[in-house]
Amino acid sequence: MSEPRLHVLGIGNAIVDVLAHAEDSFLVDQKIEKGAMTLIDAARAQEIYSAMAPAIEISGGSAANTMVGIASLGGKAGYTGKVRDDQLGEVFAHDIRAAGVTFSTPPASDGPPTARCLILVTPDAQRSMNTFLGASSGLAATDLDRDLIESASITFMEGYLFDRPPAREAFFEAANIAHKAGRQVALTLSDPFCVDRYRAEFRRLVKEGVDILFANEQEITSLYEVADFDRALQHVRQDCRLAALTRSEKGSIILRGDEVHVIDAEPVTKVVDTTGAGDLYAAGVLFGLARNLDPATCGRLGSLAAAEVIGHFGARPETPLQTLAACAGLLA
Amino acid sequence: MSEPRLHVLGIGNAIVDVLAHAEDSFLVDQKIEKGAMTLIDAARAQEIYSAMAPAIEISGGSAANTMVGIASLGGKAGYTGKVRDDQLGEVFAHDIRAAGVTFSTPPASDGPPTARCLILVTPDAQRSMNTFLGASSGLAATDLDRDLIESASITFMEGYLFDRPPAREAFFEAANIAHKAGRQVALTLSDPFCVDRYRAEFRRLVKEGVDILFANEQEITSLYEVADFDRALQHVRQDCRLAALTRSEKGSIILRGDEVHVIDAEPVTKVVDTTGAGDLYAAGVLFGLARNLDPATCGRLGSLAAAEVIGHFGARPETPLQTLAACAGLLA
Repeated sequence: MSEPRLHVLGIGNAIVDVLAHAEDSFLVDQKIEKGAMTLIDAARAQEIYSAMAPAIEISGGSAANTMVGIASLGGKAGYTGKVRDDQLGEVFAHDIRAAGVTFSTPPASDGPPTARCLILVTPDAQRSMNTFLGASSGLAATDLDRDLIESASITFMEGYLFDRPPAREAFFEAANIAHKAGRQVALTLSDPFCVDRYRAEFRRLVKEGVDILFANEQEITSLYEVADFDRALQHVRQDCRLAALTRSEKGSIILRGDEVHVIDAEPVTKVVDTTGAGDLYAAGVLFGLARNLDPATCGRLGSLAAAEVIGHFGARPETPLQTLAACAGLLA
Repeated sequence: MSEPRLHVLGIGNAIVDVLAHAEDSFLVDQKIEKGAMTLIDAARAQEIYSAMAPAIEISGGSAANTMVGIASLGGKAGYTGKVRDDQLGEVFAHDIRAAGVTFSTPPASDGPPTARCLILVTPDAQRSMNTFLGASSGLAATDLDRDLIESASITFMEGYLFDRPPAREAFFEAANIAHKAGRQVALTLSDPFCVDRYRAEFRRLVKEGVDILFANEQEITSLYEVADFDRALQHVRQDCRLAALTRSEKGSIILRGDEVHVIDAEPVTKVVDTTGAGDLYAAGVLFGLARNLDPATCGRLGSLAAAEVIGHFGARPETPLQTLAACAGLLA
């Protein structure tokens, strides 16, 4: 087994976020599920977009945000995801490369446009996401870069990939390549509704298909269909080699074998927009794991990265996380 | 002369801003003129974009920003400008309409893509702009909406329109329609380099073609080719019926006939990004003038609007200016 060239390779839906402020009444009028990620078609995307306030466009996508976080921490990250050869596709490719992430998936030259996620941020800083998958759902096993997967300590994939059969196939193929190369595979459950859609497969994956699991409280209780966090925790301890479970301002729990680490959330002066909090938490933890740091330090890196991103609009860090981590004494 | 339906109609280059942070060394390496607006072609746009940091996309365009400011103050604003029928064109149209501005210029169905302005914001909050005019330069007299011009108290146009002959023709045609309808015409000189390019025409316009002039210190000293602000001021007093001259943190001067008003800048806790400061100052002054407020109040509305927009990233207000103006006792 050769020395890894990448700390982490992310595979996910390549999406441009379209962010606007909205009142809670807007969500009610538009029948938008608050705090969730809802898949929408082109017509519904047009309908919501027409009704929403002036917006800003920022590159997003869950695993892509995580990879940008790893690069910001000073790590080597790669990304595989599908855009189209249109203006938003160009924006996505520019931004992820400019952030220092290796990205070489060729854009589609036909089919639906680059994916966008219409994100409504309510006054309580909660984000409600409406995703038109567009070109991102064209991701297939043929888009995988075997060399990149084999070269990464960890291949990190979104549960969202299960929403389209070719992307789901790519998921299993990538996991297979990584494991054959002696590397680790990480999964984030992505969203409680996503867990609802693929509960059986995710349970099997957690038990035997992946090495590292990310989930928040809603996702993990949904996975095991239990009423409270602690019950879910007992299940995870049986099933999973390493899990990082997030609970918003209550912090997170990292489980590894018999070890249990309780990690505090990093204090935040003002929560502006929670978009990307989970993605950036994963960035901190994955970077730490890829560098063989102890689980508690990994968790603190995750808390620190999440705190940065919820302090401003948008799901990618504005301040270099490497500097913040160094100041906090977490990275030499 | 019928009662105006619009306070102000803006005509200008319809542009989507692509904003990123940059160090001063980046400007040096890329030979970018600091603080200025430089016109670039498609190849140069690609070159700068490839080199610049991850960015966010926000609708911009000088006169368009001003119209959004007027709508935010509670005024009735319209806009005429040209985009293409592409993704960024859709973004531009969505954002200006969602801000409450009447916008009905049909998008071009062929030719270059929607205009973009690559804006580098340095740590001192200065913005350096690199504009690829694209579809916006397709604006021509045939795009003018005569009814909209006749219905507006003031038609406000950018000096930037002079950069392409068909848009320059549209400028004169619009001024003609407005004046025939008994309305006023306002001009912003836009940029010192723009003044360099069209000095003779701008001088003639200031003397006899427009009713209201906006210029900053660099622009007005360039117009009259004088070394200091006060000398320029003496020229303007001879030439122009009403002029609003801005001087960044030194505030502004409003001249109307024999009247001279010295307006302080509004204090700002932290200047984040000066993009749009001049555009929003113009919004406050124009809205005040269209409502027949006295020049000093118009100036204070301008200072207030400019202060809001330099406190955050991007050239359009985030907080409703009507609320800020009411709290400051400027609007009933």
